[in-house]
Amino acid sequence: MSEQSIVTLLSDFGLQDGYVGVIKGVIAQINPSLKTIDITHQIPPQDLVAARFCLMNAYAYFPRGTVHVAVVDPGVGSERRGVAIQFSGGYLVGPDNGLFSGVLSLSPAVAAVELTHSEYWRTVQASTTFHGRDIFAPVGAYLASGIALQMLGTVIDIESLVPLPLVDLEFSDLGLRGCIQYIDIFGNLITNIPASAVEGKNWSVRVKQRVISRGKTYSDVDLGQLVSLIGSHNWVEIALNGGNAQTELALKVGEPIEILS
Amino acid sequence: MSEQSIVTLLSDFGLQDGYVGVIKGVIAQINPSLKTIDITHQIPPQDLVAARFCLMNAYAYFPRGTVHVAVVDPGVGSERRGVAIQFSGGYLVGPDNGLFSGVLSLSPAVAAVELTHSEYWRTVQASTTFHGRDIFAPVGAYLASGIALQMLGTVIDIESLVPLPLVDLEFSDLGLRGCIQYIDIFGNLITNIPASAVEGKNWSVRVKQRVISRGKTYSDVDLGQLVSLIGSHNWVEIALNGGNAQTELALKVGEPIEILS
Amino acid sequence: MSEQSIVTLLSDFGLQDGYVGVIKGVIAQINPSLKTIDITHQIPPQDLVAARFCLMNAYAYFPRGTVHVAVVDPGVGSERRGVAIQFSGGYLVGPDNGLFSGVLSLSPAVAAVELTHSEYWRTVQASTTFHGRDIFAPVGAYLASGIALQMLGTVIDIESLVPLPLVDLEFSDLGLRGCIQYIDIFGNLITNIPASAVEGKNWSVRVKQRVISRGKTYSDVDLGQLVSLIGSHNWVEIALNGGNAQTELALKVGEPIEILS
Repeated sequence: MSEQSIVTLLSDFGLQDGYVGVIKGVIAQINPSLKTIDITHQIPPQDLVAARFCLMNAYAYFPRGTVHVAVVDPGVGSERRGVAIQFSGGYLVGPDNGLFSGVLSLSPAVAAVELTHSEYWRTVQASTTFHGRDIFAPVGAYLASGIALQMLGTVIDIESLVPLPLVDLEFSDLGLRGCIQYIDIFGNLITNIPASAVEGKNWSVRVKQRVISRGKTYSDVDLGQLVSLIGSHNWVEIALNGGNAQTELALKVGEPIEILS
Repeated sequence: MSEQSIVTLLSDFGLQDGYVGVIKGVIAQINPSLKTIDITHQIPPQDLVAARFCLMNAYAYFPRGTVHVAVVDPGVGSERRGVAIQFSGGYLVGPDNGLFSGVLSLSPAVAAVELTHSEYWRTVQASTTFHGRDIFAPVGAYLASGIALQMLGTVIDIESLVPLPLVDLEFSDLGLRGCIQYIDIFGNLITNIPASAVEGKNWSVRVKQRVISRGKTYSDVDLGQLVSLIGSHNWVEIALNGGNAQTELALKVGEPIEILS
Repeated sequence: MSEQSIVTLLSDFGLQDGYVGVIKGVIAQINPSLKTIDITHQIPPQDLVAARFCLMNAYAYFPRGTVHVAVVDPGVGSERRGVAIQFSGGYLVGPDNGLFSGVLSLSPAVAAVELTHSEYWRTVQASTTFHGRDIFAPVGAYLASGIALQMLGTVIDIESLVPLPLVDLEFSDLGLRGCIQYIDIFGNLITNIPASAVEGKNWSVRVKQRVISRGKTYSDVDLGQLVSLIGSHNWVEIALNGGNAQTELALKVGEPIEILS
């Protein structure tokens, strides 16, 4: 077992109740030499779109072979499958509900199994409400410890993995139409327009009748002014220098924006 | 010194002020090979009942020998004792104020000392307001590094440890009467009725004149409906499928519920 | 490379968006044996005074040689320099905006470089908005892995580092005048009067026409009463036994207080 294997954790469990600590305890019981890294546990409850976004924008910054355990799981205890997926960056473990579709849109699945082999669970009889602790964390710990994907369950067709498509981009009279896909803690509004769609163009963003001119960084505009830019996630983003663009524009996830170019 | 020794941390310090980081620094100064795992630092300020609940429901998921340092400490600087306790799962370190009584109700104490030997503190003169940093974290680090319990202070009678009893369960005309003992971040209402009290029975929960029927998992009822079930903590729990039962029922910790069976 | 090297992280990124997880991934890509410890990621957005305070009060509790990466960076993407600084406790890495001036007021800089050598960045072309991920975390990881400070960029004069002075203390008719410099999660009001200014004196605090008498610990006054004391940070502090002094006194950071002695 390598000393350097990493298991990342992403969930909507929050940090107040001890659920995340328990998951790390379960991983340490299986292999105390694994390193766990929290991506976030503050996904809004059951918000698959936010979870999909955060994992899609984080996975590439981890060493190859990292195991990403992600648990935002509105259907826990129902018929939805638990899965482990191999892709070029490492492994994904969690519910098959679209959570992983962002990562897989950038780095396709190579193989996948449905988690049916309970000898790799914490107990043969998993709880009906906390598969993060009873199934996904143990399976992630075994994968990171070198157990082969195929040991963990029944091989499934990677085409059968549940998708979670975003609103598609549309070409409009003036340019490109998209939406806000995520709002971060600073109130930066991250659209679903990738940098690649605007690179080399002379673009700006229109939202709620306002045209927001383009900069390279927040401080390219005066304090208190809005700016559109390619954010660190590599999406077109709307920010307010020294402030909160969400508060200023009163926008929500899903609301439309337009690229003028 | 083992590479795999674990010190867990539980407190009401929150994460904003750097108190938790400082505690981890103090542990690393003593033995940088120790692994620290946060159970939670978001216990409501000075809420011993919540702290007791979280530790009681977390300890069993950690490897044997784990040292649990828990600091919710309204009496810091007063006459209350600092203690280290050995039990079958490992060690408990913190103030003697009832915080550990939940764990010890499930896994009794084997031995205990009052922390009187200041050579295992960070400084001989501990601050009067931050024993987590100055006494409990260092003592936990030494215990996890192999120092014997008896080195840390004066042996005390385990019967003398301060209790923190919950509201007792009562038998009523209709079944069993208990209360809400904890509300988690999802708004799930966790009662003080253990699974063992209802197993094999045909039970439901009555609260505020409403009878909440039983399921095995959240999705056994329609979206937006209340359900009572055995939660992942192994207590009777009231949840709302796809929502927040606390908001729906406007209940607080301590409020009564009744089991009908 | 030592197994025991520590990189601490302090920022205003919050924990919800995955920014901190990504930073830890970047560090693990460079050297997975490094240990990262969060000081805090909940500095109020762009609040350099709070960041300065938290780092100044935390650094001394970490092993010698620890690398402190701190990113509160209102000027990211502008002309402000990125720096790495050697001091007797270890290293400081982040924007040159005064963030480190608290630490350096207690433990002076020995040497400093401007971070100009992009071979130690994550990519030659850093993003314009997330230098924490692209420059400061990688540089911190290389420093903690044994790369010499001088490899990381151009040596600069330590006198040229940007200061961030606090309100000075003033002698008044009655004693000493200062201000609230930080308010912690418990609502404790931490002043900028160091313990050394009042030690051995018979002092109390006056604020908003109220005189708050002195104690050694919170419980030296009755529940619900205000007390002034030397806090665990070694500053004069105003607290409320069993409650929240900020709520009681409605004070903000920067508001004046007076020491009577």
